Amino acid sequence: MEGVCVLGAGSTKYGKLADSIADITTQASVAAIKNAGIEPKEVGASYISNVFGVADKQVHIGPVLMSRLGIPDKPSLTIESACGSGSVSFREAYANIAAGFYDCLIATGVEKVTHTGTEWTTTYFAYCSDFFYEGQSGASFPGLFASMARAYLTEFGATEEDFAKVAVKNHDNGALNPKAHMQKRITVDDVMNSAVVASPLKLYDCCPFSDGASSVVLCSEKFAKEHGGDYVKVIGSGRGGSPAALQGRDHMTTIPSTKIASEAAYKMAGVTAKDIDFAEVHDCFTIAEVVDTEDLGFFDKGQGIQAVREERTRLNSDISINPSGGLKSKGHPIGATGIGQVVEMYDQLTGNAGRRSVKDAKLGMTHNFGATGASCAVHIFESA
Amino acid sequence: MEGVCVLGAGSTKYGKLADSIADITTQASVAAIKNAGIEPKEVGASYISNVFGVADKQVHIGPVLMSRLGIPDKPSLTIESACGSGSVSFREAYANIAAGFYDCLIATGVEKVTHTGTEWTTTYFAYCSDFFYEGQSGASFPGLFASMARAYLTEFGATEEDFAKVAVKNHDNGALNPKAHMQKRITVDDVMNSAVVASPLKLYDCCPFSDGASSVVLCSEKFAKEHGGDYVKVIGSGRGGSPAALQGRDHMTTIPSTKIASEAAYKMAGVTAKDIDFAEVHDCFTIAEVVDTEDLGFFDKGQGIQAVREERTRLNSDISINPSGGLKSKGHPIGATGIGQVVEMYDQLTGNAGRRSVKDAKLGMTHNFGATGASCAVHIFESA
Repeated sequence: MEGVCVLGAGSTKYGKLADSIADITTQASVAAIKNAGIEPKEVGASYISNVFGVADKQVHIGPVLMSRLGIPDKPSLTIESACGSGSVSFREAYANIAAGFYDCLIATGVEKVTHTGTEWTTTYFAYCSDFFYEGQSGASFPGLFASMARAYLTEFGATEEDFAKVAVKNHDNGALNPKAHMQKRITVDDVMNSAVVASPLKLYDCCPFSDGASSVVLCSEKFAKEHGGDYVKVIGSGRGGSPAALQGRDHMTTIPSTKIASEAAYKMAGVTAKDIDFAEVHDCFTIAEVVDTEDLGFFDKGQGIQAVREERTRLNSDISINPSGGLKSKGHPIGATGIGQVVEMYDQLTGNAGRRSVKDAKLGMTHNFGATGASCAVHIFESA
Repeated sequence: MEGVCVLGAGSTKYGKLADSIADITTQASVAAIKNAGIEPKEVGASYISNVFGVADKQVHIGPVLMSRLGIPDKPSLTIESACGSGSVSFREAYANIAAGFYDCLIATGVEKVTHTGTEWTTTYFAYCSDFFYEGQSGASFPGLFASMARAYLTEFGATEEDFAKVAVKNHDNGALNPKAHMQKRITVDDVMNSAVVASPLKLYDCCPFSDGASSVVLCSEKFAKEHGGDYVKVIGSGRGGSPAALQGRDHMTTIPSTKIASEAAYKMAGVTAKDIDFAEVHDCFTIAEVVDTEDLGFFDKGQGIQAVREERTRLNSDISINPSGGLKSKGHPIGATGIGQVVEMYDQLTGNAGRRSVKDAKLGMTHNFGATGASCAVHIFESA
């Protein structure tokens, strides 16, 4: 197996974007290629991650991107795994480099949905659930995660204010990220006074619908060394699944796929949760971040909320969780999110994260899932 | 690299299906697993190919399938590359086995759109073009392939009756395929008298919109040998791209991605076009099959139509092209088509193709592209 590296990264701003899905895909890809210091012709193929290209009338985005990059002869494909599309696509690109099929690839994630409005977006996103058991009965994602939150409140004696503190922390981080959708600080009172979306979750417990594109250049370690320039190493990669419908699981306060994927990634990397300096985790709702940090082994089950109370997950505390602002504040363009997490790895581990830098960061983790965690991928990155 | 085999195959009937996208995905997958003689728990992951899951309100199909198979902990993903999704997904599954990441996988393709009607389907399919340059100007796929057909008629002195003979041949083959969408023979007059869709293409020059699902079990050669039972070997795999918009190409009567992908596949397999006994090629329109057979090297440029006139592409003639009936008669559930072609490889090379059997078949090829060939994958299979 070849060692695999990330050689460059680029992103559009996340938020409500005016440009087309093809345009923002191209913008992020060009930025990543430029950041890597390579020519487009050195890119062997593109791995696109996207869920609802139909929203902007463009699926089969790969050939459009390759044509715009001036390399139309090169192959491309699109990978969808709901909100986990980006990390799953990164995994496939990783596997193809590791196996020696390519020396250099780009993985670009994109989503463009905000122009369709909240009703369209909520409806279509519900198609990512197990629609027969969930979506068609009205159980869209805020409702499903509210069920998890209610179970967690009951089981572990947490309070709604505790969840609010996750949002406050992530907005504090996002305020330091010039690419974030929501670059503003909020208070616990702001969260508690925001509209109830699905009790106990309120508006500020929920990540926004975002447009955006993120791209990274992956290559073999040999290619990276020959090329020169900053790179980071991918030292762990794991995937896993959970029963698609929440009702099919034994427990409401844990996501099996996170455990399966992270155990595989830790094993491959030869590290444990204690070694991780910072992590970008899937905080589509505040409850999700708490559950994630437990399932990833950072805290014991039921102790994630105590860690939030004690501010142990803040930037440059015990473990910096979501230094980028996470889905909650950086935004959640669903096909781009998993790749955006890798962009944060690259920026942090090459010393380009500005005011949100994690001090002395050596090991970072990305954790990204689809739906209520029916699919999940975890990757571990090391500074070179 | 591990040798990669196909150990089992299954399909629903293609056509207008009443069951849900989740149901037909499951039906084909269960059939393939049963045909392979393995247990679901031996499947390491699923590679789904699908384009418009939104039509039946279910994207993120993988976890739904895995849950129904009783293996919810296993990973899955969906790959989209327009009408070439199946072959691109097969390629990714192939690469993951070849690299040793898995011993056994399933690749299942599915599409379910006919219930949405012709207008919805035509509109959404046009999102697979380069929408900025093509779809939004009204250039949907019948019009784009009509442009290619017009150019071919002019350049090589073909007639519309010649194209009709491609449809007649494929319907003759499809009439022998119990899974085909259109199991009826037609005549040149039927084609010539059918409604003009986009001149010079008439209704019977066009493949139908179909629902359907197809699935194959891939495994390492070691797994196949240990397991016993019939299997076929994948000996060549190639991918390529073309300028996304037809207007960006130098010639209208050739598809660059087909040449790139097939040259790679021939090189890897160590064979030439002359060695291939039968091929499933992408005949979304009659013109496409003619162009394909030239770009794949079976005939010189401009001679593909002469081969049709001389009936050299009929079942058990010089080279059996589309013994299954092809997209034209077997049907074209776009996410399933590329996998359906592999099902035909398995059935032919293990002696299970019934009345449409290619005599003494040893080497078969699948050729499947997206849009007007913006993306393409070619695979070569050998009997074990």
